[in-house]
Amino acid sequence: MKKKKIYLSLSADNLHHGHINVINKASSLGNLTIGLLTEEAILHKKRLPLLTFEQRKKIIMNIKGVTKVIPQKEWDDTVNIKKIKPDIVVHGDDWKFGIEKDLRSKVVKCLKSIGGKLVEIPHAKNGTSNPAQQAIKGHINTDS
Amino acid sequence: MKKKKIYLSLSADNLHHGHINVINKASSLGNLTIGLLTEEAILHKKRLPLLTFEQRKKIIMNIKGVTKVIPQKEWDDTVNIKKIKPDIVVHGDDWKFGIEKDLRSKVVKCLKSIGGKLVEIPHAKNGTSNPAQQAIKGHINTDS
Repeated sequence: MKKKKIYLSLSADNLHHGHINVINKASSLGNLTIGLLTEEAILHKKRLPLLTFEQRKKIIMNIKGVTKVIPQKEWDDTVNIKKIKPDIVVHGDDWKFGIEKDLRSKVVKCLKSIGGKLVEIPHAKNGTSNPAQQAIKGHINTDS
Repeated sequence: MKKKKIYLSLSADNLHHGHINVINKASSLGNLTIGLLTEEAILHKKRLPLLTFEQRKKIIMNIKGVTKVIPQKEWDDTVNIKKIKPDIVVHGDDWKFGIEKDLRSKVVKCLKSIGGKLVEIPHAKNGTSNPAQQAIKGHINTDS
């Protein structure tokens, strides 16, 4: 049977175990293409990444289970999704809230139109270990 | 022919393309065991890592070419080297200077005693991209 085509978009500027969780689960579903956000795409909503596109690509290409890395030139995943027509799009479920909420609705609609499926991976709880990170998490929870 | 046993010690708190370079080259030489520094080992010379040992282990286990990850409980690589007796120890060549200079001498001596070889990988030049990182590099160069 032909392996399913899986799409996962990432910035991956500061790679951590949460990314690995999502990549592992995504790659277990089929051939995994990572849509790696370009600097322009990231700047649309976040600060400039510390690492260049090519540096981030080098890291992501070398994660077990990653078949292919392509640029995602927009914040909006649907541009690549329409091009690639994946069977499954994988995303952390934390995009149900905050700055990616509208994007999620758009992706859900786009996937419906091409017959694709969305698989959301539960965001790692207690994923951070040091007090500074916990404080940042607390701050976000209070504000949202 | 039996594959060579390769040892590389890493903290890998903030994984970047430089780590991937070294891992790629090390794994091209044989079966790569990563000695991942525990929090106690890192604290001997540096600040507490942001990620726990298990979180960093999860990341490193998932890098292509990594055969095995074991804890390195000391800053001093030679404790594990004596146990494992690798054919080759790989390290970035930047440890010729700074806080790892004495450690390098100790590793060289230890490898001589067990008939192992040291392979040093040139530290990535212009490895950083953003102005803040460049400023830090400039600062280190000025001071050393």
